[in-house]
Amino acid sequence: MFVKRGLVNCGCVLRAVGDIAREIDTSRYQNGKDDEYGGDEDADIKGYEDTHVMIFIGFGFLMTFLKKYCYSALGFNWLLAALAIQWALLCQSFYHMKDNTILLTKKSLFEADVMSATVLITFGAVLGIASGAQLLFIALVEIAVGCLNLYIIGDIFKASDVGGSIGIHTFGAYFGLGVSTALRIKKGEVPEASRLDGPNYNSDITAMIGSIFLWIYWPSFNSALTVSPAEYQRAIINTYLSLAGATVTAFVVSSMVNHQKGKFDMVHIQNSTLAGGVAIGAVCNMFITPGIAIAIGIGAGILSVCGYRFLTPALEKIGIQDTCGVNNLHGMPGIYSGILSILFAALATSERYGPELPGIFAAMESGRTAGGQALYQLAALGVTLLLSFGTGVITGLLAKLPLFEPLKESDRYNDEINWELP
Amino acid sequence: MFVKRGLVNCGCVLRAVGDIAREIDTSRYQNGKDDEYGGDEDADIKGYEDTHVMIFIGFGFLMTFLKKYCYSALGFNWLLAALAIQWALLCQSFYHMKDNTILLTKKSLFEADVMSATVLITFGAVLGIASGAQLLFIALVEIAVGCLNLYIIGDIFKASDVGGSIGIHTFGAYFGLGVSTALRIKKGEVPEASRLDGPNYNSDITAMIGSIFLWIYWPSFNSALTVSPAEYQRAIINTYLSLAGATVTAFVVSSMVNHQKGKFDMVHIQNSTLAGGVAIGAVCNMFITPGIAIAIGIGAGILSVCGYRFLTPALEKIGIQDTCGVNNLHGMPGIYSGILSILFAALATSERYGPELPGIFAAMESGRTAGGQALYQLAALGVTLLLSFGTGVITGLLAKLPLFEPLKESDRYNDEINWELP
Amino acid sequence: MFVKRGLVNCGCVLRAVGDIAREIDTSRYQNGKDDEYGGDEDADIKGYEDTHVMIFIGFGFLMTFLKKYCYSALGFNWLLAALAIQWALLCQSFYHMKDNTILLTKKSLFEADVMSATVLITFGAVLGIASGAQLLFIALVEIAVGCLNLYIIGDIFKASDVGGSIGIHTFGAYFGLGVSTALRIKKGEVPEASRLDGPNYNSDITAMIGSIFLWIYWPSFNSALTVSPAEYQRAIINTYLSLAGATVTAFVVSSMVNHQKGKFDMVHIQNSTLAGGVAIGAVCNMFITPGIAIAIGIGAGILSVCGYRFLTPALEKIGIQDTCGVNNLHGMPGIYSGILSILFAALATSERYGPELPGIFAAMESGRTAGGQALYQLAALGVTLLLSFGTGVITGLLAKLPLFEPLKESDRYNDEINWELP
Repeated sequence: MFVKRGLVNCGCVLRAVGDIAREIDTSRYQNGKDDEYGGDEDADIKGYEDTHVMIFIGFGFLMTFLKKYCYSALGFNWLLAALAIQWALLCQSFYHMKDNTILLTKKSLFEADVMSATVLITFGAVLGIASGAQLLFIALVEIAVGCLNLYIIGDIFKASDVGGSIGIHTFGAYFGLGVSTALRIKKGEVPEASRLDGPNYNSDITAMIGSIFLWIYWPSFNSALTVSPAEYQRAIINTYLSLAGATVTAFVVSSMVNHQKGKFDMVHIQNSTLAGGVAIGAVCNMFITPGIAIAIGIGAGILSVCGYRFLTPALEKIGIQDTCGVNNLHGMPGIYSGILSILFAALATSERYGPELPGIFAAMESGRTAGGQALYQLAALGVTLLLSFGTGVITGLLAKLPLFEPLKESDRYNDEINWELP
Repeated sequence: MFVKRGLVNCGCVLRAVGDIAREIDTSRYQNGKDDEYGGDEDADIKGYEDTHVMIFIGFGFLMTFLKKYCYSALGFNWLLAALAIQWALLCQSFYHMKDNTILLTKKSLFEADVMSATVLITFGAVLGIASGAQLLFIALVEIAVGCLNLYIIGDIFKASDVGGSIGIHTFGAYFGLGVSTALRIKKGEVPEASRLDGPNYNSDITAMIGSIFLWIYWPSFNSALTVSPAEYQRAIINTYLSLAGATVTAFVVSSMVNHQKGKFDMVHIQNSTLAGGVAIGAVCNMFITPGIAIAIGIGAGILSVCGYRFLTPALEKIGIQDTCGVNNLHGMPGIYSGILSILFAALATSERYGPELPGIFAAMESGRTAGGQALYQLAALGVTLLLSFGTGVITGLLAKLPLFEPLKESDRYNDEINWELP
Repeated sequence: MFVKRGLVNCGCVLRAVGDIAREIDTSRYQNGKDDEYGGDEDADIKGYEDTHVMIFIGFGFLMTFLKKYCYSALGFNWLLAALAIQWALLCQSFYHMKDNTILLTKKSLFEADVMSATVLITFGAVLGIASGAQLLFIALVEIAVGCLNLYIIGDIFKASDVGGSIGIHTFGAYFGLGVSTALRIKKGEVPEASRLDGPNYNSDITAMIGSIFLWIYWPSFNSALTVSPAEYQRAIINTYLSLAGATVTAFVVSSMVNHQKGKFDMVHIQNSTLAGGVAIGAVCNMFITPGIAIAIGIGAGILSVCGYRFLTPALEKIGIQDTCGVNNLHGMPGIYSGILSILFAALATSERYGPELPGIFAAMESGRTAGGQALYQLAALGVTLLLSFGTGVITGLLAKLPLFEPLKESDRYNDEINWELP
């Protein structure tokens, strides 16, 4: 019953997307005159296929950790992402049209995939809590606001954020926490035996499929928008080292802070191992040296595990759910990455960066100082936090309208509501 | 017991393949004189690795949806594909030898992978119904006939079918339905409780691994044989949009036509989401514009879900099994794609396509008109349908010989027959 | 409790890695002056991403076949590999520094991934038997010795081993068997019902995820270090054919030698299918012709299945555990590949290999004869066997110290020891 409106909603959007897309003039990329718009180099973009795996397999399976919400995790992840990429192609292109014409290239698809990640991060915050109709509504608003935010921090501020730690991870996490804050309800007493908001042995294993694929392809994600072979390799190497550092650290810290001392907690392993990829995102193409990359990963691992262990339960006590702990995987590591980007921008000199400078800090070539760049990095982080949390709260409040058929508490974390089960 | 003959059979083929392959002169690609045969550019073929994942992980896991046939689904998928790729390398090369020499390149491997897809589609139609010996026999015949069909429609008719929607998907599906028609037996009464031809919660999740990987890499599959960067990007973008359109549509229509109104059916989500990739296959490199690509996907989603909901049960009533519903995923969307290719060929003009024309419609450069090309597209579709269904029925009839040890009804959909279970 | 020391141990190493890495001067790859060190071509290394999937998804999931050790299999695989790649970057680079400077490129990451495979192979031998602390200790020693071995056989002997069958697979397997020999304990009587050292229906399916991904990407692994397009294609094609041959053979032989005649054994299917990739590894870039490639795969399939069926139980009787049967998947096929490399090196002529010669047999260009090369291949195999088994035994003996808290027999194959289970 309750997804009906969502689907009608979704059908309308779909038609809209179809209609608008029909007007996109793609003759440019179709006429084979490559020199006219320079889109052919976009055919060589590295990282598109790997990122595609992250979005659909990575996020999808990572969220199958709940024992009775696997169908919904995989299904909604797919539905939301498939809708988001169409919508994101339009919203993003809105800021980059030439002569009122949208030019689609393979790179556009990559950027749409990346944009859809914000929606999936937000989905992680309200996994099992939001209804199908609410999720579709949230997705549509978030993509529109997220593209605006990217335009502000990228095109206006010219902040450096090659791996999207500020514009994607931080944005998605705090938009999600905003929504979750608005949706918060007084929690009833659910008997332990009937609680569905936990894993079983099998669901934790399928979640590892997602987690490991995200980990594997994160270097491809962070390096996809680099412009020179040297910048590309720096991004790959630094991300790889940061992830490796965070992984070892997540195991060490998990066994140290766990209730049962010396044992690992699967939640930390599935998530905090990835925090190194987020934390290095905004600075992975800068000159940070491998030792610092590992150190950044170690910091991210500590921050993330401690967040899962201490902060998430505290938030839950005041009614703010964060089912996947996106604050610990994307939120705080994203802020951490933003702060690092302020620091490394302030340290940048044209002597050190040489011909690599304009690819990383575009505005510094045209006279902006390192200090100025650092301030813009700070502004990018600040605007992202405000815009994401603020519009997240508003979106969450709107999503509570009966129109979007919110879930009763007893219907949470349950595939039964949305699926014909075997 | 009953796989013994199949294995002997298989062993013979294996020896034959080995013997013949031993005679393949590969000195050409081995002597490093690249300019002599132009094979080095084949080293750069995009899409080979992704397609390899589709064949072995994609098809393999998609078929694990049956609760007690997962070992067989994965095992036979692997065995059949590993045999088919060796056999296809020979059968395909038979039509393209130079000086009685088969030249193998990385592109040959891609083409062998694609050819093996026909066998796996057919396997989907008779999943759990055909014995191991029958499957091996079917595979050997199908590859031989399928390569002949590809030669007719590609080399003789010069029809355009870059994603193989006609030559691979339509062929595999109707060959499978032909086999299934021949194998049809009067269905006994199996008590509901002991029926094995359905999923359980876990098997539906492992099936999603296959389904999502097929979805992710479909753009790579459809675009692998394109020749210019512009054609490559068109194929990627159109396939991506069609898949996205089909996915959203599959969810919407699934919840609309389901027995339990408003709920999703996992069968539709696993399969109809992919119909967009089949439907766009024959036209994805043509000038169709993004809006039309999405519309094609929407059509495919509707066609496929309705097929699963209404047509498959009707076919089952008259005794024709189609375990995976390949008619709804590969068959009807393949025909749909063939019809679209007739339409877009008829609309092609050299003004519009410019330098891209010869890469897409090879014969139009040497004087064939758009109308003529459309007729050849029609001929390709017609020949494929006739040849696949006809030889499928004959193969199915031969497969009923005791030599191939057909399964009793009580042995269907059961790993117990073929595997030592834990 | 008992992982505590391991983690302290691990923490120390981590700090060491961080400290040393901090001193690596990466300004070379960071200053964008590409011509200075020639590292930019390393940005184009094929096979890195695919190999990354093999290491973390492939090995990880392949080892989930035990019913109550899936968390540990995935978790320790991840932890060990993440530690090993950091440590391997240092150990490998130690032999290739210029001006006391370690230059990291994307190729270095590939090589670190490959090196970590030795640790994971060894892990397979003692899966469920070694404690966390033991595993960390083993990993650190093995990487150091393994890098030394690679330096001896590659840089000093200049043996040809493009797919690492000698230096990685053989080394990892016999190091593991050495450890296992040292760890062997008198086996108590464990009642059948409570035995954990076997699969269940689900765990065998998740193991197939790993197995198939290993199979799919093996051609990428074997071909990654080739230097010309022709050599690259030979490596890809030969590996592909050998794997296909081994796969069909594994099915045939499995059903022939099985306890229940005519049925397949999942252990053989998960592992012996891959033996073709190991067996072809050292010779896949040589001029061996496709027929021989298939024949090599067939031989590997027979060798591996018979090993699982007859040799592993025999070893177990004398107390040497080999949980994953690495001797049958990596050990014997690795020796087989080494012997093949002796043979094909002896047959190599500069007439036949032409300009491809120096890429494959570097020392033959500077005067070494084919016979000499063959002797060096033999020496490489011999040194690898001695060094791996010898240091494996010593490492195993040291690992029995109480410091590394060995497992009691009743704690084997049990996630309960290391994980907080749901």
